[in-house]
Amino acid sequence: MKELKELSKYLKKKITGKTLYALPRQWIIPNYSGKLSIKDGRYFVEPYEYYSQLIDRILENDRGVDYSKSLALINGEQDASWLRKAKMYGALPRATVAYNHKGFGAFEPEDIFGYKESGTFLKMIGLLPYLKELGINVLYMLPISKMSNVFKKGEIGSPYAVKNPIELDESYADPLLEGIKLEEQFKALVQAAHMLGIRVVLDFIPRTAARDSDLIKTHPDWFYWIKIEEAASYKPPHIPQLTFKIPDKEDLEIIYSAEEVKVHLQKFTLSPDKLDPEKWEKVKKMEGDILSNIAKEFSIITPPGFSDWVNDPQPTWDDVTFFRLYLDHPEASQKYVSKDQPPYVLFDVIKSSKFPGKKPNKKLWEYIANIVPTYQKKFGIDGARIDMGHALPSQLQDMIISSAKSIDPAFGFIAEELEMKNDKKAKSEGYDCILGNSWYASARPAEFYKFIEEITPNLEVPYIASCETPDTPRVVARENGNKIKYLAPALLYLSPNSIAYINSGQEIEEIQPMNLGLDNTIYGKTVLPPEDQFYGKLAFFDYYAMHWDKANDEMYNYLKWILKIRDEISDVMEGEFKYVYLNYQDGTIANYSYWKGDKGAVILGNLDFSNDKYLEVLLNETLGRPVIVNDIVLVTRNGKRKLSYGVGNSVPVNLLPGDFTILLVNWE
Amino acid sequence: MKELKELSKYLKKKITGKTLYALPRQWIIPNYSGKLSIKDGRYFVEPYEYYSQLIDRILENDRGVDYSKSLALINGEQDASWLRKAKMYGALPRATVAYNHKGFGAFEPEDIFGYKESGTFLKMIGLLPYLKELGINVLYMLPISKMSNVFKKGEIGSPYAVKNPIELDESYADPLLEGIKLEEQFKALVQAAHMLGIRVVLDFIPRTAARDSDLIKTHPDWFYWIKIEEAASYKPPHIPQLTFKIPDKEDLEIIYSAEEVKVHLQKFTLSPDKLDPEKWEKVKKMEGDILSNIAKEFSIITPPGFSDWVNDPQPTWDDVTFFRLYLDHPEASQKYVSKDQPPYVLFDVIKSSKFPGKKPNKKLWEYIANIVPTYQKKFGIDGARIDMGHALPSQLQDMIISSAKSIDPAFGFIAEELEMKNDKKAKSEGYDCILGNSWYASARPAEFYKFIEEITPNLEVPYIASCETPDTPRVVARENGNKIKYLAPALLYLSPNSIAYINSGQEIEEIQPMNLGLDNTIYGKTVLPPEDQFYGKLAFFDYYAMHWDKANDEMYNYLKWILKIRDEISDVMEGEFKYVYLNYQDGTIANYSYWKGDKGAVILGNLDFSNDKYLEVLLNETLGRPVIVNDIVLVTRNGKRKLSYGVGNSVPVNLLPGDFTILLVNWE
Repeated sequence: MKELKELSKYLKKKITGKTLYALPRQWIIPNYSGKLSIKDGRYFVEPYEYYSQLIDRILENDRGVDYSKSLALINGEQDASWLRKAKMYGALPRATVAYNHKGFGAFEPEDIFGYKESGTFLKMIGLLPYLKELGINVLYMLPISKMSNVFKKGEIGSPYAVKNPIELDESYADPLLEGIKLEEQFKALVQAAHMLGIRVVLDFIPRTAARDSDLIKTHPDWFYWIKIEEAASYKPPHIPQLTFKIPDKEDLEIIYSAEEVKVHLQKFTLSPDKLDPEKWEKVKKMEGDILSNIAKEFSIITPPGFSDWVNDPQPTWDDVTFFRLYLDHPEASQKYVSKDQPPYVLFDVIKSSKFPGKKPNKKLWEYIANIVPTYQKKFGIDGARIDMGHALPSQLQDMIISSAKSIDPAFGFIAEELEMKNDKKAKSEGYDCILGNSWYASARPAEFYKFIEEITPNLEVPYIASCETPDTPRVVARENGNKIKYLAPALLYLSPNSIAYINSGQEIEEIQPMNLGLDNTIYGKTVLPPEDQFYGKLAFFDYYAMHWDKANDEMYNYLKWILKIRDEISDVMEGEFKYVYLNYQDGTIANYSYWKGDKGAVILGNLDFSNDKYLEVLLNETLGRPVIVNDIVLVTRNGKRKLSYGVGNSVPVNLLPGDFTILLVNWE
Repeated sequence: MKELKELSKYLKKKITGKTLYALPRQWIIPNYSGKLSIKDGRYFVEPYEYYSQLIDRILENDRGVDYSKSLALINGEQDASWLRKAKMYGALPRATVAYNHKGFGAFEPEDIFGYKESGTFLKMIGLLPYLKELGINVLYMLPISKMSNVFKKGEIGSPYAVKNPIELDESYADPLLEGIKLEEQFKALVQAAHMLGIRVVLDFIPRTAARDSDLIKTHPDWFYWIKIEEAASYKPPHIPQLTFKIPDKEDLEIIYSAEEVKVHLQKFTLSPDKLDPEKWEKVKKMEGDILSNIAKEFSIITPPGFSDWVNDPQPTWDDVTFFRLYLDHPEASQKYVSKDQPPYVLFDVIKSSKFPGKKPNKKLWEYIANIVPTYQKKFGIDGARIDMGHALPSQLQDMIISSAKSIDPAFGFIAEELEMKNDKKAKSEGYDCILGNSWYASARPAEFYKFIEEITPNLEVPYIASCETPDTPRVVARENGNKIKYLAPALLYLSPNSIAYINSGQEIEEIQPMNLGLDNTIYGKTVLPPEDQFYGKLAFFDYYAMHWDKANDEMYNYLKWILKIRDEISDVMEGEFKYVYLNYQDGTIANYSYWKGDKGAVILGNLDFSNDKYLEVLLNETLGRPVIVNDIVLVTRNGKRKLSYGVGNSVPVNLLPGDFTILLVNWE
């Protein structure tokens, strides 16, 4: 709280009066009373004046509590059930709040006026009123910790190549707050979010580190090492006798007797401190990058990561390396490995959840388990997503979850679990929700029907209801995207066990994906017009700014409206769940309903993108008992219409291709 | 000479013995005797050992003269007729010799091992034996002077945004030569080239400077200035009464009475030293970037450049600004401008060759005219291309050319003149050759016929015979590119008044253009497969490395062969020029011949890419007198074949689609 107030004071002192800082129209707070000059559709403000006024607005919500604690601790919540009512916005801050603040020429990460055009925590504070107005109550951010800049794919390091998990990335410091520590800037962001009732969830990556991790200096033995001359040919060995699979115990003999594996194992070497302790003491103290110095002095390097699936065609993950979670080889594999084999990486070693060693690297585990608590204590974050949790030893996963929950029992954990059927497993492991794969289903009418009708009602933990994610294609880039962009959010956000999720940019119909990780091809990066500055760029690897200036407010308003409906029926959604009886069903009409007290909500969606559907909804059969209807409010994209007379058991509904309708039923 | 020897000594002292530096197969010098390890098709060497041995090889050609002088001065040449025998290689060094020296992962401008993967002068030295073997005798380099990094289009500044015309760009320093001054490194490159008989020609840009030119600090009044708040809307004013044209004197009244021009003129302001001399003294001494400080303190900025054509649809040139060549407004326009109008930029001001002022900015002119001499004196360069020379006041152009020629009468000047018909004009202005537009003609069979037959024989200065340039599409990316890539070099390099030109990358069939400046569309940048690291990248604006690892030697060997033929017939080419009499001509058979003494050379090309052509060449009619043939050597892409008996006046030739044939005639 102190930080946020200080920020406002600090900013006020620096006001110069020049309105030379451009902002997207959408970000400007309503009734802004500072200087504002609109030129060629761009909104120019005095940046210090603008942000101080914005922060003052947020401070109006100050109820005098300590907003540097999680909202759950503030509210005294005992479990993470808040996730069930979450309306989540997923942001990659460096791209989400990137903007050409000069207001002319091309976007530049930092410009001649000293503005940081790439994203900053201050600008994320600036986005909060916009998110609040949209209806968001959880801000999920991709990794914001110190990123590595080596072995990178594009212009800048990926947020998933973590150079230091407990330091924030300096790129998020805003020059407008020169002299204020980066951690203070982030603290202010969390406080501001909390003040607006928005929880903050962060993404953590415990299984891997950047190839040049800061931890190498203090713990070279927490990493694997290969000889540099082997780096050019380093890749996952091919196992001709096996198919594309996660290895089973029975496969180990085959794997270890494969020729390529034998060659692979010989590429590894001991860590520099073991190779030559005296030299290591000297190298450790050298100036410059530690990995670079090790490479020069020892001719060894940390190897790139790769998939834990045997014969996975994807290339090596060049910007990350695996943590050495066990001091010994996997227990089940030890008999296949020679006594003097240095620590090595192989499918079994990577999948340590299935192939643990006998000697956990305790110090490393403690370090890893302490990462989330560090953010809890310093900033009061509310939840975390755990990347590749499925590959962690279960004991380490337990440590991570329990140490966070011991600080804050209502701290929320999101499992990186794409399989909907693993809801129970995730729950038993201590996670509060799963990612799931609604983005896959919602792009495929046949699967979408099954997903909504058969999968979502039976989940034991909620799932992230998303028609796009940072890893997938944008919903507008999908086949029938111009229909799915409306239909999918409606059906998903109102589906059972859903956490409504908006992917940064979705609300302005951004077409370019942030990454090609899931359900995309390489052509997925070519969807912008070639004259666009960001043509071919992916926010995970390149500087990127969303197309705010080209967007209208239609999708924002639509999503806001759907989230509002969700709020309106959130009470009914806690009641009985029922499939909807229709006069006919051809497998293209999504249908589900909720009933509580004298209220009901019936949701119908036409998954057929070519044909209209004329239906009758049979209420008695749906609920399984006679329903006396007082009135029904028919909600469509065109608005609400009350059917208050002549409504019987059978309600006629006309659905256009890709259309949906919500019936709000008052009954006895 | 000293520098090059010193370099070799310096490198030898640093040899470590580790072969961890990858080079393209093509660059490796023949019979390299150092350590070499080939892995996965990549060639790994010890870099210090490799470059020292390479330099020693070059030093074998040392004839004990001062190679820091131009070859013309060394040879005592009196004019630039060496250009007529030039076989020129056009390089953008940062891309031309860019390579992933790690040998694994992605290309990075600088990597963890401290290798500079982006181009350096040392690596250009490394390329010289490869160029020499190809037959090159002139190395033309795009601007290598200090580049600006602001208002840039892509990842890095364009070489045409010159921050300091008399400083070399620090990016060209090679970390392998740490401690050796950049100027020494460049000097060594010029010496090495000269030792191999290769002349060095550089590109200079006298009309514009980077927006944040170093010259601002000492001469703020050499630039134009606008108010920052006008920057967002700054663009060439539209003149509704005029068409797309270079303005004439009669147009000035229309231009100056246009509404947009009036608004445009009000955007300008005096230079900071005139606005507030006292403040300027302070700002000048401030730390940090001078333009940034001026922007903050005076709220003014240098404006972007734009075309000198009225109503040109191209956008502003954001990374450059015009030099203020006159202290007053254009003489012809002064009556339209109010007395207190600050210096401004408009079509007439830009085209100062046509619309000069009365008061030349003498100091600036002297500075500009001294740029080329600076490079002559320091490095002994052999020639220069003058960018936008056509827009310079003729007196300034004279100064530039005469000051260089006074130092070295054989110094070569290339005019940025694309119109072939302006050969006489260029000559009269003192230029030694023109660029021309053979790249345009060679991609269009109908034009190509006319170009070869009607235009090239009549030129008064030679032209750059190029089927691609740094500004145009690559020849392999053209329609019928797989045929034109052979046909065009053959016809062009052997055409009258030709300077044989190979565009860096052409010899390895690189498909991605370096820039989209000429004869291309925005889609021209999308020709690589999307999975390529350099997909969508242009070497002018982004880091780029050619695809050495994917190339075979076929095109290199082909171009080498054509250049050799050119050498073989160079004497005949100085003889009589004659069109070739054929038994028929349908406008698709390029034909020309040279005759001298008892030799003749007949060149025939089939510009029809669909049909074979069976022809008879009529020698008597071609030469206009009886020819007694001793023998004829028929040269085709399949080799040479001697016709030594039964050859009469009529020689039958069969040309496949896009094919060519050269007849070397021995006659009496």
